[in-house]
Amino acid sequence: MTLKNTRASNYPEWYQNVITAADMAEVSSSPGCMVIKPWGYGIWERIQRVLDDKIKETGHENCYFPLFIPLSYFQKEAEHVEGFAKEMAIVTHSRLTMQDGKLTPDGKLEEPLIVRPTSETIIADSFSKWVNSYRDLPIMINQWANVVRWEMRPRIFLRTREFLWQEGHTAHADYAEAEQEAKVMLDVYADVAQNALAMPVIKGSKPTHERFPGAVDTYCIEAMMQDGRALQAGTSHFLGQNFAKSADIKFLGKDGKQQYAYTTSWGVSTRLIGGLIMTHADDEGMVVPPKIAPYQVVIVPIIKDKSQSDEVLAYIKKLSAALAQQSYDGEKVRVKIDTRNKESVDKMWEWTRKGAPVVCEIGPRDVQNNALMIRIRHKINTPEWKQVVQFDDFVNTISQRLESIHADLFNAAQSRLQSNQRTDIKTAEEMQAYFEQQNAWIDGPNGKVAFVRGKWSEDPESVEKMKEMKISIRCIPEDQSHEEGLCLLTNKKATLDVIYARAY
Amino acid sequence: MTLKNTRASNYPEWYQNVITAADMAEVSSSPGCMVIKPWGYGIWERIQRVLDDKIKETGHENCYFPLFIPLSYFQKEAEHVEGFAKEMAIVTHSRLTMQDGKLTPDGKLEEPLIVRPTSETIIADSFSKWVNSYRDLPIMINQWANVVRWEMRPRIFLRTREFLWQEGHTAHADYAEAEQEAKVMLDVYADVAQNALAMPVIKGSKPTHERFPGAVDTYCIEAMMQDGRALQAGTSHFLGQNFAKSADIKFLGKDGKQQYAYTTSWGVSTRLIGGLIMTHADDEGMVVPPKIAPYQVVIVPIIKDKSQSDEVLAYIKKLSAALAQQSYDGEKVRVKIDTRNKESVDKMWEWTRKGAPVVCEIGPRDVQNNALMIRIRHKINTPEWKQVVQFDDFVNTISQRLESIHADLFNAAQSRLQSNQRTDIKTAEEMQAYFEQQNAWIDGPNGKVAFVRGKWSEDPESVEKMKEMKISIRCIPEDQSHEEGLCLLTNKKATLDVIYARAY
Repeated sequence: MTLKNTRASNYPEWYQNVITAADMAEVSSSPGCMVIKPWGYGIWERIQRVLDDKIKETGHENCYFPLFIPLSYFQKEAEHVEGFAKEMAIVTHSRLTMQDGKLTPDGKLEEPLIVRPTSETIIADSFSKWVNSYRDLPIMINQWANVVRWEMRPRIFLRTREFLWQEGHTAHADYAEAEQEAKVMLDVYADVAQNALAMPVIKGSKPTHERFPGAVDTYCIEAMMQDGRALQAGTSHFLGQNFAKSADIKFLGKDGKQQYAYTTSWGVSTRLIGGLIMTHADDEGMVVPPKIAPYQVVIVPIIKDKSQSDEVLAYIKKLSAALAQQSYDGEKVRVKIDTRNKESVDKMWEWTRKGAPVVCEIGPRDVQNNALMIRIRHKINTPEWKQVVQFDDFVNTISQRLESIHADLFNAAQSRLQSNQRTDIKTAEEMQAYFEQQNAWIDGPNGKVAFVRGKWSEDPESVEKMKEMKISIRCIPEDQSHEEGLCLLTNKKATLDVIYARAY
Repeated sequence: MTLKNTRASNYPEWYQNVITAADMAEVSSSPGCMVIKPWGYGIWERIQRVLDDKIKETGHENCYFPLFIPLSYFQKEAEHVEGFAKEMAIVTHSRLTMQDGKLTPDGKLEEPLIVRPTSETIIADSFSKWVNSYRDLPIMINQWANVVRWEMRPRIFLRTREFLWQEGHTAHADYAEAEQEAKVMLDVYADVAQNALAMPVIKGSKPTHERFPGAVDTYCIEAMMQDGRALQAGTSHFLGQNFAKSADIKFLGKDGKQQYAYTTSWGVSTRLIGGLIMTHADDEGMVVPPKIAPYQVVIVPIIKDKSQSDEVLAYIKKLSAALAQQSYDGEKVRVKIDTRNKESVDKMWEWTRKGAPVVCEIGPRDVQNNALMIRIRHKINTPEWKQVVQFDDFVNTISQRLESIHADLFNAAQSRLQSNQRTDIKTAEEMQAYFEQQNAWIDGPNGKVAFVRGKWSEDPESVEKMKEMKISIRCIPEDQSHEEGLCLLTNKKATLDVIYARAY
């Protein structure tokens, strides 16, 4: 039941095939936008629940700020900020009128409104009203929202004109506290990526030319996809006093002096779902890590003779109830009984393509034997995929089984990340030759272009070189050797260790 | 500490004062939009949690559909649907360019995009792709989203250009099933309004001229605000085949014939928070019903001498932990310890204005006595407001105390609703005189213009009359007498019972 395209045969098409096969999302008739379908949205809801709890545990509260930002706010930003992005949706009219039988925009606005691409400016405007004294600080808030960036080459989950995200925004009385906040939130992101999404990441900071416009420092987590490309999975920005100055977030300090606040912002988006797919999915479809699976166990009844239906369904309900009493990752186990009027083998394959961690098939013989057949999704194409287990054994071990699935997924991805970070490339020539190879499925036979860890000299020439090579510095990782070597772009002397890669 | 304006002195200003005093939301610099602040958003999150659980229990799954709807979708609707609303935000450009130092809209779109005012058209477009056979039905989905309607007289929570809501959309193979779905969801809304928001409602259906454009039937719940006006708190539409026909949602039936599906849609919004305020708040500020309070118990330490701080805080933590072990309404009791660096009396008043159901004050003497002082918010200005209770007694009774607060709030609102439904008005002249009176706080001394329950003849003349009188039929309530009487607008013979009122 392999997908039409495999990772080895056509990686980009395979990605789209997984999304369709798992029924997670689809391209919308609204240009460049996606429809997130129940299985995809269910995964997003689980990610939200896990991350939202941690956002609150670390002292933040949720708010909601307007979708529309007056154009003048961007005028200020464009004048002050290099790298100001200009592709955005602009609202210019507020009414439709029928003219010659055709609806036509009317009611021209005095000031055009921008559909938020991110909310620093409009939130800073509120902060400037909320802050008067050091006693009003810190302000630590977050919002879950949709944002719009006018992408010209949309790709579901990775790059769509509208996407969903959370954006945290904080203001602090001093530099160190704000800088620390940005780092704490990066740790939260790394924790969620690794412990909930089973997606190992490299933590680091962006080089100056890759920073968020206006940021003093941009911290990031970078993950490795199965084609060796990097995916920026989350960013946390220490904004210094830059946004405070342009929005006038001023306060009276303990010392009796007026001063500007220090701010941060940080976000992750539905792009994480694209990252999940390219971390865990295989040639049969999606594989969802148990902590964020909408259902962790799906039960498919196998009823050939209608007279056995009551007995089988009663047994399944007993199982479902027993499983739902068990906890995993601090919550009750999530069980779905699939009673739809469809062939049971079709249902089994449907849940396999969706990547439900465990699919159970239960027929009359299982009831007699007090047993069930389980299929462990990520073990497909191995002898361990299909197992017959006893009812009590399955109920009592479900939590360990789910944890072991999580561990398997994390370990596989972790070992991919570790074994595809080249550290033996020493010269610019070697690096050029390396990245001239085609990208392919890096666990397959045909090519292993992935990450290179090496030196960078920071000079402008090196930045130009990267553009030519279509690679980028993904991050300056936290762990630095502090040893001198040669820049892999210019062969100049350099001390900084960086991660070079192609990226999404 | 009474608010600047009271319900009796200036009801509309009182409403704004409550929002400010409780720090729930504020007017944004983005014209006509609001910023929902943590306490307001926290209430919305609780409403979401309660309602979302019920939406899922009744068989729906969450999805997400695009913010932007191509203009052509509305063209179709405008041609087919009477009462098509035209005030909406229109995106016409996709880029900003700097011209003479000024950012200017550029990149004109071939087809303008409408920021969704509601999503029937774009969702019906997806449904038309998802449905082929009767086996694909029903489709039962919901989304939590922001929507935009270009209101000219914005009012926080009640009428803002952007607001948050959920919109459920379903498609069914037959008429009866779809009609039933619309009714089931109305019941869910009534249940949440009454049992979570402690807001009694009248269930009914809208008269033809008040239906959602394109609906066969619009069901609604109507609540009574403290000034006697009605607030439409939720609507559920049975759309028949109207949207299916314009979006071509067709399927092959069991009988082998192509046919159109039957659809429904239903929604509630952040407007409910406006309803909550005008149902429960008093002249001291907000009163939040316990089931949707972000914190049900707030603990304020009273420490005058720093040497007592450790002892008091240890006692408070013990109390908080013991309370958080108790359950109410199926969840752990939500407790907040307010350790901010502020005067404790200011904190107590802050939480009173916010309407936290129970505020505890705890000082060294309480620790010695194993006791605490509690303030029951809605009992303010009565002897029961302040009570000293024993630690164990408070912990063991917290669940009953919260339930009794819920019951008090519901009963007060219920008795207001019941005692302000005039049923003794018998002629158009009496009714005219009744609604010519000024609206005021109906529990106060100055006026009691609220709901009138009486006959309606359904003729066009009566609809004109209501416009003149600035009243409307809020609903045709479920319980009908079926007795003949005189229409309260035209004095013609009529059998239908309706609720007449002024409305938000």
